[in-house]
Amino acid sequence: MMSRRALFTSGLAAASLHAARRTYTWAEIDRILARGDVKGKLSKDDLPTPALILELDAFEANVKKMAEYVKSRGRALRPHAKTHKCPEIANYLIRAGASGACAAKISEAEALAAGGVTGLLITTATIGKNKIERAVALTRKRPETILSVDNAQNVRDLNEAAGAAKVKFNVAIDLHVGNRTGILPLAPAVSLGEVIQGMPNLKLAGLQAYAGHASHTIGFENRRRVSQEAMAPAVETRRMLEQKGIASPLLSAGSTGTYNIDTAIDGITELQPGSFIFMDVDYNRIGGQSGDVYGDFQNSLFVVTTVVSKPKDEMAIVDGGLKAFSTDKPFPPQWRSGSDLPYAFAGDEHGRLTLNEGKRVSVGDRLEFIIPHCDPSVNLYDRLYAVRGGHVEAVWRIAARGMSQ
Amino acid sequence: MMSRRALFTSGLAAASLHAARRTYTWAEIDRILARGDVKGKLSKDDLPTPALILELDAFEANVKKMAEYVKSRGRALRPHAKTHKCPEIANYLIRAGASGACAAKISEAEALAAGGVTGLLITTATIGKNKIERAVALTRKRPETILSVDNAQNVRDLNEAAGAAKVKFNVAIDLHVGNRTGILPLAPAVSLGEVIQGMPNLKLAGLQAYAGHASHTIGFENRRRVSQEAMAPAVETRRMLEQKGIASPLLSAGSTGTYNIDTAIDGITELQPGSFIFMDVDYNRIGGQSGDVYGDFQNSLFVVTTVVSKPKDEMAIVDGGLKAFSTDKPFPPQWRSGSDLPYAFAGDEHGRLTLNEGKRVSVGDRLEFIIPHCDPSVNLYDRLYAVRGGHVEAVWRIAARGMSQ
Repeated sequence: MMSRRALFTSGLAAASLHAARRTYTWAEIDRILARGDVKGKLSKDDLPTPALILELDAFEANVKKMAEYVKSRGRALRPHAKTHKCPEIANYLIRAGASGACAAKISEAEALAAGGVTGLLITTATIGKNKIERAVALTRKRPETILSVDNAQNVRDLNEAAGAAKVKFNVAIDLHVGNRTGILPLAPAVSLGEVIQGMPNLKLAGLQAYAGHASHTIGFENRRRVSQEAMAPAVETRRMLEQKGIASPLLSAGSTGTYNIDTAIDGITELQPGSFIFMDVDYNRIGGQSGDVYGDFQNSLFVVTTVVSKPKDEMAIVDGGLKAFSTDKPFPPQWRSGSDLPYAFAGDEHGRLTLNEGKRVSVGDRLEFIIPHCDPSVNLYDRLYAVRGGHVEAVWRIAARGMSQ
Repeated sequence: MMSRRALFTSGLAAASLHAARRTYTWAEIDRILARGDVKGKLSKDDLPTPALILELDAFEANVKKMAEYVKSRGRALRPHAKTHKCPEIANYLIRAGASGACAAKISEAEALAAGGVTGLLITTATIGKNKIERAVALTRKRPETILSVDNAQNVRDLNEAAGAAKVKFNVAIDLHVGNRTGILPLAPAVSLGEVIQGMPNLKLAGLQAYAGHASHTIGFENRRRVSQEAMAPAVETRRMLEQKGIASPLLSAGSTGTYNIDTAIDGITELQPGSFIFMDVDYNRIGGQSGDVYGDFQNSLFVVTTVVSKPKDEMAIVDGGLKAFSTDKPFPPQWRSGSDLPYAFAGDEHGRLTLNEGKRVSVGDRLEFIIPHCDPSVNLYDRLYAVRGGHVEAVWRIAARGMSQ
């Protein structure tokens, strides 16, 4: 909760904000948002709700902290763009020192490349004739692109397509160190490395190893143990490949939850965290090195809703429901400003607030919520509104929204 | 599972399909999909996965069954477009006899109206100066549009805006008969009706009453009891209004789960079901008049995925995860062709299949899934591919996707 002094100050800021700007009609706001020249014109209160907003001060602090930490440990940073799907954010991260961006699938990579993003690593294998054709086109445009592989037939298919198209594919072996994709580390992965080594149109960039179960383990010491156990076979695979004379310059691993664990593991060369730029209810609860709340990074992403109905004294309905927030976690959105306004999903379009102890809200009030899980929430919106001190500074297109192909 | 004969026949159909059409490059497929002239060219196998497909035979049978049933009971049908968000589907329903379409919010209604949809009923109150300005513009374009109201201040705001703009708003009182929005029925709703009656720029179209808890009650007899109890005060409110000389021609209620319950309740004039066109795992399990599976309508909506990784003999990973399927229900997507290929979510981008009893799938295989909950799943996709017998007949834009404002 805000202190009285902070409330007073923010009240003043809001007052001066409102004094400084004029009031726009919706037709004017709609045109300004479409053009994107919002700066100095619009405030948060002009945005149609539900609206996805990014607090720039917190976002910039998160980026600075991660970039400086990873650099201080002598590792590279290639943040995962599946979190934000936004070329402006990927390019901001690159300007802050990132070596590029990870993309989950070829269609996401295409959308990022179209927005000028370089240094792409596609973290899911590119399967099938049509998607390989897309990878050829992307590699022509951005020859440094790296494709993940975990299957010998796919490796042969890629080599053949690259040969026919007269391009070279950079590939990284995706290691199964968690509970998703990848080839088993150690001998199976080394065999695949040997297959790749024999392919004239492929170049082995190295390895990638994502352990989702480690990143979300609750409690720092637990998380360290789980991540070290998951990463040990990845590091060993890299050593075995190099013993066979197969260079594997890259070992891309890590996450928001393990950034200060994996950067202490010898052999990991690069981190691919995503959520640290935004944070969410899920990551807040994994715990930090000191305390139950993971406070290394700040919540910068919120959904603004409006109270649209108040059926009873103790119940208010906001206009954000299953289509405004991620729903994959067993906990709901959290009101930004305290714990005394619990939210429950009330169908596709609505959330239900329980008004305890005489808590008052009125129809028309705007309430902001921390989202349960950032990645699938961002994927629901076409635009991210970048705000600072209540002003809208930019409108960023979530260009890869829906690009799961 | 398919019989041997059905397998044989579908094998023949697939063979003739492949014989009849040529193979396209991805660049060609991409252009065809963008133009939309798919008919006679593309098959389901040409679609980049994850892809949302609509089986037209099942969809058309669902529409015919609902339209004929509701008509035979002397009620109107205004299906809820929050399910499909697609003007082509809303217009198809109107051609099949629907009186219009419900829209959840003003932005959804705008997208439908832009696609030529008429007879819109917006089922959430339109709150705030900017959204009321949008409602004025929509009413100018489509004067038959109906806005829901449940709050006296909003009624006064609408009246004032309508007066200033020289339009008339049609309004329906939204009744709190479930667990979401609306004013309490009986005396509070009748008072609001009297306020509306006194407003020169508003016309009372009637009442709307959605009881989400009733539509999803498991077991037909239970569901009938719950819906009858929920609807009784709505019907009584209509009677009380008319006793006061306040005409309330409309009482819009009902759902896919209660269509054959609410059409038997005197006083309900119109149904607003949504899911019946698609169905989903959730609605399949509510049970019908005979049996545990609700078989009144057929599953017509599926997500096609591709196996992209096979880390172990007993595990396959498909390319559809939290961003390809709704996640608000406590059950996962269901493989379309049997119960022996259980799916579990494996993060944003992937699903994990457990391969029991020697079940074999290979990297590159395409597998189709019934979605847990249709509305929020459709909201993840930009395009719906309408297919018949394996051929793609049309590409429909989900024009109101993301329009939760």
